[in-house]
Amino acid sequence: MFKKRLYTPGPTPVPEDVMMRMAEPIIHHRSAEFNELFTRVNENLKYLFQTKQPVLTLTCSGTGGVESTIVSLFSPGDVVVAVNGGKFGERWVEMPKVFGLKSVELKVEWGKAPGADQLRDLLHANPTAKAVYLTHSETSTGTATDVRLLAEVIHRHSDALVCVDGITAIGAHEFRFDEWGIDVCVTGSQKGLMIPPGLAFVALSAKAIGRMRASTLPKFYFDLGKALAAYEKNDTPWTPAASLIIGVDVALQKIRREGIENIWRRHERMAYGLRDGIRALGLKLFSDQPSFAVTPVVVPSGIEWKSFNKILKLKYGITVAGGQGDYTGKIFRISHLGYYDELDIVTVLAALERTLAECGHTCEPGAGVQAAQKYFISHQG
Amino acid sequence: MFKKRLYTPGPTPVPEDVMMRMAEPIIHHRSAEFNELFTRVNENLKYLFQTKQPVLTLTCSGTGGVESTIVSLFSPGDVVVAVNGGKFGERWVEMPKVFGLKSVELKVEWGKAPGADQLRDLLHANPTAKAVYLTHSETSTGTATDVRLLAEVIHRHSDALVCVDGITAIGAHEFRFDEWGIDVCVTGSQKGLMIPPGLAFVALSAKAIGRMRASTLPKFYFDLGKALAAYEKNDTPWTPAASLIIGVDVALQKIRREGIENIWRRHERMAYGLRDGIRALGLKLFSDQPSFAVTPVVVPSGIEWKSFNKILKLKYGITVAGGQGDYTGKIFRISHLGYYDELDIVTVLAALERTLAECGHTCEPGAGVQAAQKYFISHQG
Repeated sequence: MFKKRLYTPGPTPVPEDVMMRMAEPIIHHRSAEFNELFTRVNENLKYLFQTKQPVLTLTCSGTGGVESTIVSLFSPGDVVVAVNGGKFGERWVEMPKVFGLKSVELKVEWGKAPGADQLRDLLHANPTAKAVYLTHSETSTGTATDVRLLAEVIHRHSDALVCVDGITAIGAHEFRFDEWGIDVCVTGSQKGLMIPPGLAFVALSAKAIGRMRASTLPKFYFDLGKALAAYEKNDTPWTPAASLIIGVDVALQKIRREGIENIWRRHERMAYGLRDGIRALGLKLFSDQPSFAVTPVVVPSGIEWKSFNKILKLKYGITVAGGQGDYTGKIFRISHLGYYDELDIVTVLAALERTLAECGHTCEPGAGVQAAQKYFISHQG
Repeated sequence: MFKKRLYTPGPTPVPEDVMMRMAEPIIHHRSAEFNELFTRVNENLKYLFQTKQPVLTLTCSGTGGVESTIVSLFSPGDVVVAVNGGKFGERWVEMPKVFGLKSVELKVEWGKAPGADQLRDLLHANPTAKAVYLTHSETSTGTATDVRLLAEVIHRHSDALVCVDGITAIGAHEFRFDEWGIDVCVTGSQKGLMIPPGLAFVALSAKAIGRMRASTLPKFYFDLGKALAAYEKNDTPWTPAASLIIGVDVALQKIRREGIENIWRRHERMAYGLRDGIRALGLKLFSDQPSFAVTPVVVPSGIEWKSFNKILKLKYGITVAGGQGDYTGKIFRISHLGYYDELDIVTVLAALERTLAECGHTCEPGAGVQAAQKYFISHQG
């Protein structure tokens, strides 16, 4: 018997009841049945984002979701600030340029989070900035940003829209769209929502919606104005990925049953338990401010990443994510985003310890799983 | 017991084995397992389009697929001709304008197909036209265009790219990308491919790929240059809708087993059998050149569409598509695109006859199913 277990930050495991529901015969996306379902999805998405504002559903990846905000809210020549602390932040710096915007980069070393002072100084130097793009959880480095604090800084020093890439954060990190004064937040289906990839979700504040009217960039498929008009009737302007939306409906009902604050606490506990286990195995965390969705670990010296990963994957059935860019072979990332519990953390630590031992990196047998178990037992929910 | 049957031109029914395969645990889209599967999908997509050229897979609706060709192949000011004979043709006239192109409309009455002379004259009047967009099967009117003939006309009178909206035609109508000299063809997953919506596919000729280099329109998510570079490694630039691609893999294997020419013949036979049945029920076909994917029928005088549709749907479980735009309430459309056989045609005629009778429109009992049955028996494959 060979069991496979996925610990990657997207796709994340899909709960069995969600998979089965999506396998039912397809229904038409312009029908009373689908309309009722999508109305419920739209209500529950507001709960997920902690907002009373619209959350639009687009058929595309998270990158497409971010592009929809660029082309729908801005005009050529507009200045936007983007934090670049990893592969995704890098993309949010590059994308506005492609559409003729002036992109101002707030460069952060990989594994570090952007600071409030650094952002304040940049806003003072760019008083015409129309938006700041923050990555709540930078997937490539497993690093979390203090979105609540930085949103305050932006509001204090600027009139810029606070735009959040919440792609790996929503459903893992505390996030309160309305209370924190967020203007734009994007997430994807294959993350905390526990669905296969193919959908992006975009929440918009009243201020962001107001800015849409002034935008002159050409747009059609990614026109959030069209999406918003359809949304008012619980519809979409183009044929949506209906089977994935059916899955989202089931997943959001699970999320409501567990309660969003309990979900945030579960992710926090899993992250802390895993970190204790990682340290007990004699490994180092990569990030200064690790994410609760994905834990970045330094590949220990003397271990060759490719052979380590091969044993982990082919012998123990565990898929984790490697490093990206300059960090290929230097770090790896263990995701616990969405459909995971504390026992899954013990499981991955057990496999890691045995794989490390086979690569010649030993520790006291069971030290990893014991440390996690100790944390979980002494911090029961 | 209440059985539901879908006869809509997208979504179309998903075969049971495809549904079950898509319900299996999600796999990572950057893995050896997925790469092997996607390599096979890419080979089999060539077979579906009858081409040796690349067929790119995008995560979006068919409309997104067409947008990718506009933004990737053209530049502001370029002249493109688009045939407008229905709701989708209308969209292909509108879309280029949004991106600063000069859109020349070849207007065709709903239910009629564009003629060769009309197109030739328009090409002579617009010698700088960079492309002609044809809709192979106009879904809103159930009307087929003679793409092979019009492609010849375009090549004889112009250097324009031949761009085909094959969204409801691919997998139903004969289509030979290479042999007919097509440059661009777009289809969607929820049509002849028998998968839920969420994917678009774009085939590109060498000439179209050459034009990509000159295009100055801004693009990111829909940049076919990026998609083509990733495709060379059987990869995608952004996270793809992996579960749908897994479904496409199963569906394409079914398509290869049946054989594309057999599939075209099956759709032709279903369309002819249904047409005979429709006439025997005393109803009229709407189109001058009806599609083999979807049969358009005139709502007979004295019958109110909404109450007719209510009985068909709620009593007999049959979902068909109503008319669109000016034809709302005046026509309805019965789709037989993808996972349908001749017995499904008899089924829908049986339900139509009983629904018509309940609305006061009578004919000799069993006339509809008998006519179809006679056609099928005398034209066995």
